[in-house]
Amino acid sequence: MSEPQPDQILQVGLGFWASKTLLSAVEIELFTELARHPEDLEALQRRLGLHPRSARDFFDTLVALKFLERREGRYYNTPATDFFLDKRKPSYIGGVLEMANQRLYPFWSRLTIALRTGLPQNETRDGGPDPFAVLYADPARLKQFLKAMTGVSHGANLAIARHFPWNNYRTVADIGTAQGDLITQVALANPHIDGTGFDLPEVASVFEDYVEANGLSDRLKFLPGSFFDQPLPKADVVMMGHILHDWNLDVKRMLVRKAFEALPQGGAFIAYESIIDDDRSTNAFGLLMSLNMLIETTGGFDYTGADCTGWMKEAGFRETRVEHLVGPDSMVIGIK
Amino acid sequence: MSEPQPDQILQVGLGFWASKTLLSAVEIELFTELARHPEDLEALQRRLGLHPRSARDFFDTLVALKFLERREGRYYNTPATDFFLDKRKPSYIGGVLEMANQRLYPFWSRLTIALRTGLPQNETRDGGPDPFAVLYADPARLKQFLKAMTGVSHGANLAIARHFPWNNYRTVADIGTAQGDLITQVALANPHIDGTGFDLPEVASVFEDYVEANGLSDRLKFLPGSFFDQPLPKADVVMMGHILHDWNLDVKRMLVRKAFEALPQGGAFIAYESIIDDDRSTNAFGLLMSLNMLIETTGGFDYTGADCTGWMKEAGFRETRVEHLVGPDSMVIGIK
Repeated sequence: MSEPQPDQILQVGLGFWASKTLLSAVEIELFTELARHPEDLEALQRRLGLHPRSARDFFDTLVALKFLERREGRYYNTPATDFFLDKRKPSYIGGVLEMANQRLYPFWSRLTIALRTGLPQNETRDGGPDPFAVLYADPARLKQFLKAMTGVSHGANLAIARHFPWNNYRTVADIGTAQGDLITQVALANPHIDGTGFDLPEVASVFEDYVEANGLSDRLKFLPGSFFDQPLPKADVVMMGHILHDWNLDVKRMLVRKAFEALPQGGAFIAYESIIDDDRSTNAFGLLMSLNMLIETTGGFDYTGADCTGWMKEAGFRETRVEHLVGPDSMVIGIK
Repeated sequence: MSEPQPDQILQVGLGFWASKTLLSAVEIELFTELARHPEDLEALQRRLGLHPRSARDFFDTLVALKFLERREGRYYNTPATDFFLDKRKPSYIGGVLEMANQRLYPFWSRLTIALRTGLPQNETRDGGPDPFAVLYADPARLKQFLKAMTGVSHGANLAIARHFPWNNYRTVADIGTAQGDLITQVALANPHIDGTGFDLPEVASVFEDYVEANGLSDRLKFLPGSFFDQPLPKADVVMMGHILHDWNLDVKRMLVRKAFEALPQGGAFIAYESIIDDDRSTNAFGLLMSLNMLIETTGGFDYTGADCTGWMKEAGFRETRVEHLVGPDSMVIGIK
């Protein structure tokens, strides 16, 4: 047998180098700058205010990581970084990485403490305010955040819009709808569907602007509310994307019960996020997301398809299944 | 053309999650514990003092990242983590990851500041002591660190011992020899070679123990000294592994000149580390290592094969070449 090699251990163990390099590039708006026009080393260094000692290594690292291209001494965005990391494009998802850079990277330095105590390590650790309450109190930042959530979930939203048997249903409610991309994609792909986006009142204008921009204001309405305080809006299909994992087991079960109560006989509940594989041995992103819930919440955790179908059956759903969407994401479907 | 996908951006941007998970596992000595015997979830959680909320996600994340295996409810090391991350084995390389966890992870949170100022962001930033001076003052920690350096360079050391034409030479000097694994592997593979390990006096006993354990005390000697203050020991081949990148351009040139002066006509100088490709577009690890030199030193940087052969030619070497070793590592060879 050949001797074991340390490459994979070192690559992951020092993986924060590449990660932080990309996060700093988003922070200083490198991709936004290059989206205006490609630039050579000196011009780019000057425009971004970087030091001569560091600029060339920094840019060339991003070339080697395939987030930039360099041709004849000029740096260019790749198609993906131009599309997703130019702040002036609607497809910008850098908001998630800005948050990762400012908040999650330093909070994750306390992972070992979280593992030992089971306690969150974000702003609340030092008695600070709930960061999501702060976010919801600032309309401009909230809009930016909700747009970023659209960017990271858009591929899965398209898959749900295309692959779920929408022909069997007429109305849909999206719980925790945010900017509303999921329900928007469902409505765009299925002209017979009308729907309701349900979320906290602060989200209303962001949702309504997005729906109007997509020409769907006559079919998609916003309903303000909290899923803690009231029943969910009634519909043939109830959806929750990236909602259940934020909460502890009791709240998860309560939400599944409320979804059941909002549906007619034959109605469908779709819960989707980076669902962990039942063996808990392959979907690393889903498991890491669960550790991120440890850092960020008092009781949240990600879960397997089997976990979720179990809660669905407890709530009375007669039929359940799990379907893969894209990347680490799957949807769990319960039929009442 | 298909729409760009955000997967690679998100995977690298959130790559610090996987990285910190492995670093925490090394910190709490998970792999050392499992090297004693495999354990089930409850026993492992209890022995490591982890909270029930976090333990299962943590262990299963390491399974999905392929650093642990789980069979019939018991967790096992993989061959690689058992070999490299069990603290009681001589092959342990966790010292590097312990340092990354305690020091580099938090220092890299200030990468953007380093990019803007060109200044190091380690302990010295707040007027703290040079961390390497601290390390060299503590024999137990120094030994641990030098052993870890052996672990991460062993594969490249073997390649140099096997692939360089040692038959043309009789003596070798290894500059900054540390524990001496490079010169040890050269001597083991080439029984006609005698050599000198050159490093600071604090390193003597660590080097001599290692050489003795390998049965080479009659062929390999330690010479204490500083390459700033004195000439290098004379030999047919002079080697520097992971030395040049620590220093600024003036020191690099001085070291190349001193290597030239230590060699006879026809002698060879070998400089090796994660040499950056000449186009500076593929060896991401070498470029990231250079950014790590930005974080850790006042003037250090990694360099291409062309950079190094240029300094060699300036110093008078008549012939140069670059040869790949393993992973991101190459050696640059200059013939006097």
